[in-house]
Amino acid sequence: MEIKVAVAKTTRYAMEFCGDTCDIAERPQGGLSLILADGQGHGLSAHHTSSLVVNKAVSLIGDGTRDGAVARAVHDYLYAVKDKKVSCTLTVVSADLDTQTMVISRNSNCPVIIKTDEYTCVYDESVNPIGVHHHTKPVMYEVPMEEGMVIISYTDGIQSAGRKTNGKTADFKKILAIAEHSRAEDAEFIADSIMAYALKLDENKAGDDMTVVVMGVCGSNDAAVKIRKVNVNFPL
Amino acid sequence: MEIKVAVAKTTRYAMEFCGDTCDIAERPQGGLSLILADGQGHGLSAHHTSSLVVNKAVSLIGDGTRDGAVARAVHDYLYAVKDKKVSCTLTVVSADLDTQTMVISRNSNCPVIIKTDEYTCVYDESVNPIGVHHHTKPVMYEVPMEEGMVIISYTDGIQSAGRKTNGKTADFKKILAIAEHSRAEDAEFIADSIMAYALKLDENKAGDDMTVVVMGVCGSNDAAVKIRKVNVNFPL
Repeated sequence: MEIKVAVAKTTRYAMEFCGDTCDIAERPQGGLSLILADGQGHGLSAHHTSSLVVNKAVSLIGDGTRDGAVARAVHDYLYAVKDKKVSCTLTVVSADLDTQTMVISRNSNCPVIIKTDEYTCVYDESVNPIGVHHHTKPVMYEVPMEEGMVIISYTDGIQSAGRKTNGKTADFKKILAIAEHSRAEDAEFIADSIMAYALKLDENKAGDDMTVVVMGVCGSNDAAVKIRKVNVNFPL
Repeated sequence: MEIKVAVAKTTRYAMEFCGDTCDIAERPQGGLSLILADGQGHGLSAHHTSSLVVNKAVSLIGDGTRDGAVARAVHDYLYAVKDKKVSCTLTVVSADLDTQTMVISRNSNCPVIIKTDEYTCVYDESVNPIGVHHHTKPVMYEVPMEEGMVIISYTDGIQSAGRKTNGKTADFKKILAIAEHSRAEDAEFIADSIMAYALKLDENKAGDDMTVVVMGVCGSNDAAVKIRKVNVNFPL
């Protein structure tokens, strides 16, 4: 099998700093975790908040901390250092090779979509963001890792795209259709397509910071040697 | 401008765990850092060592720590927790937007190559790995960030490729030629080409863990919206 991860991220129009932060961490017991946070507000302060949250989560995951404890520890940390005053969403999607499951931990107002060859499922129960309420816990989901599985999430810049230009927001059915018509191998295409759809609604002037993350579980390829690859494009 | 980063990594033939670890961290004052470590030995213990080193470095860089202090702090940490008994190479390549320079910190037996439109330069002074000698410091280099700049480094699995199959090791001139005939936009191609060259010498049975890292400073593209992208392929 092969895990593919794709992230596409852009900053609110005319803003220098992005309040969304996303990172990928290797799990010491095998596998990858994709961490996505959207800090309260915009600009530099939101950027600092989400960076703080993601860096803490990356560090804990690197230590081998289980995902449920990561979300709790990061909440407690933000709650303490920002004195309960700053909220942040946090979504962690893990391909856990130790348990051969996908583990999802959500403290976000945005959904997580899981699509397999057999079913499509949307996790969007109401849950608090971290940082402001006492003893906040994540909503956790765990499903067996399957070839062909695609997991998608995003921040609310995607969800609310179009609000400023035409008063409507993104049509969730269209986002779902992109997922349903794509394969796990197309992780990059899925991320780019959802980003392109949102930017089109905002007429290329993003109304809010936008991030899309996609994780795909692909069948093994035929390469003679397994080569792990990371590619980053970072426009300044 | 746009920073492109490419990483290609493979594990020693028939080994489950890779002793090389590589990660990319966003700098809080702007820019990216590429961190590469090769832990002493092979397999799980080397994997743990290099993960420990890279995770510590990522965390410090995320805190805003300057690169020279990162290398020193990570050395002191490894030196303490492994009781001076375990060595690890550490190379950090940073695109520092705050100073508009590329900062390179080396504690490795492998070179760092810088290629610009005007010059090619190889940094390969002898320097200790971290973890075993009292108060180890990195060799530091700092050069102005320029469009067209390409920075390449790798671990010794690349350098020693071919030793087991034909008693010879990789021809550095060939690696340099790949750099000199490529552009900053081709970061992924450069990483893939150097990896392919090394694997060919080892007849597709890597004699050691191999990692190539490339950072390119490209001119700005014409896209209407700046989208930051990360793509990972993680074969299991």
